[in-house]
Amino acid sequence: MSPSRRNEPIPEATVPRLSRYLRKLQEMQGQGKETVSSRQLAEAVGANPAQIRKDLSYFGEFGTRGVGYDVKTLVEELRQQLGLDRSWNVIIIGSGKLGTALALYRGFERQGFNLVGMFDSDPDVVGTDRGAGPVLSSDRLEEFIAGNDVHIAMITTPADTAQDVIDRVVAAGVPAVLNFAPISATADQPVILRQVDLSTELMTLSFYLDKS
Amino acid sequence: MSPSRRNEPIPEATVPRLSRYLRKLQEMQGQGKETVSSRQLAEAVGANPAQIRKDLSYFGEFGTRGVGYDVKTLVEELRQQLGLDRSWNVIIIGSGKLGTALALYRGFERQGFNLVGMFDSDPDVVGTDRGAGPVLSSDRLEEFIAGNDVHIAMITTPADTAQDVIDRVVAAGVPAVLNFAPISATADQPVILRQVDLSTELMTLSFYLDKS
Repeated sequence: MSPSRRNEPIPEATVPRLSRYLRKLQEMQGQGKETVSSRQLAEAVGANPAQIRKDLSYFGEFGTRGVGYDVKTLVEELRQQLGLDRSWNVIIIGSGKLGTALALYRGFERQGFNLVGMFDSDPDVVGTDRGAGPVLSSDRLEEFIAGNDVHIAMITTPADTAQDVIDRVVAAGVPAVLNFAPISATADQPVILRQVDLSTELMTLSFYLDKS
Repeated sequence: MSPSRRNEPIPEATVPRLSRYLRKLQEMQGQGKETVSSRQLAEAVGANPAQIRKDLSYFGEFGTRGVGYDVKTLVEELRQQLGLDRSWNVIIIGSGKLGTALALYRGFERQGFNLVGMFDSDPDVVGTDRGAGPVLSSDRLEEFIAGNDVHIAMITTPADTAQDVIDRVVAAGVPAVLNFAPISATADQPVILRQVDLSTELMTLSFYLDKS
């Protein structure tokens, strides 16, 4: 068993893996599983057991040699480490097909993400319900952000308006942005900006297909 | 200038960066820009110039000191390296909101990805047009794959059926899978399997929000 590294900072590359362990462990918990070994968890997520033991060593020793981890305890520890033991308010800007798909995504609330508002610039869309109550006009973004505690803005506008929208939400004080628009977005203030990038995924597939 | 490393294999972590450079360069090309320095490209994509010079050194020396790279040549080189100088046939399984959003994604065809079929298991959806001609019944997946040269299957089904669908397309011979369903998917054959994982993205944001 690896020594505990509870007080060391968790490296950036570890975080996505922790979230995958958490999801798998929650599935196991839903199936009534009470303990899990690093080998079983490794098989379930397609990782190797040594990596899992190393990743989990960042937050204490709660695995028992020969028995494994208590699933419930591990889920709670992971949720706490990932900041999921509290709730985050999310807005979606761009209420087209992708925005609507995201609004209807059921994994959201389960993990403590509250969708508090949807926005669109199209007057025909404003006022319709795309899964999160009436869509608001994008003109009202700054006003809404000032009056609500918005933690995360998800950007699903077309490419040509995405950077402008990101600049506006960042200037209005939203601390985290998840951009789905196919641009290389930037932020001129130190916010958390991440990109879900379909074209990068497709090109990566293409790269490996071409080599295979 | 870095020495050329044209015959070295491109490392896995480099590939997503190449695709981001390509997208930015194509934007620049669309704006009529003819040459670009590594510093300009670095600023545009939010990377550092040394990283860009290193990444581009994998495929030859076509930058000129003090002038930079010829945009058109670099776009062509990157497209070739990423396997985008040919076309790939794509199917989407799951014709709900997310599947439809993907089918309508315009960046697709531009990069050489042809959407050749959409599938759904819901009889009310089969036969409707969700952006790629009439949706076919999922019962016909194997038959379709046998009769068409399908390179990539995008999975946008609900979580509880995704792994089964992945097993079926892999068994039918599709060499690459891009999974959007919120499960940790696996493949029992050596295919290219990638995951676009909203919950991992959200948890990563949550992690950094919690620490900030």
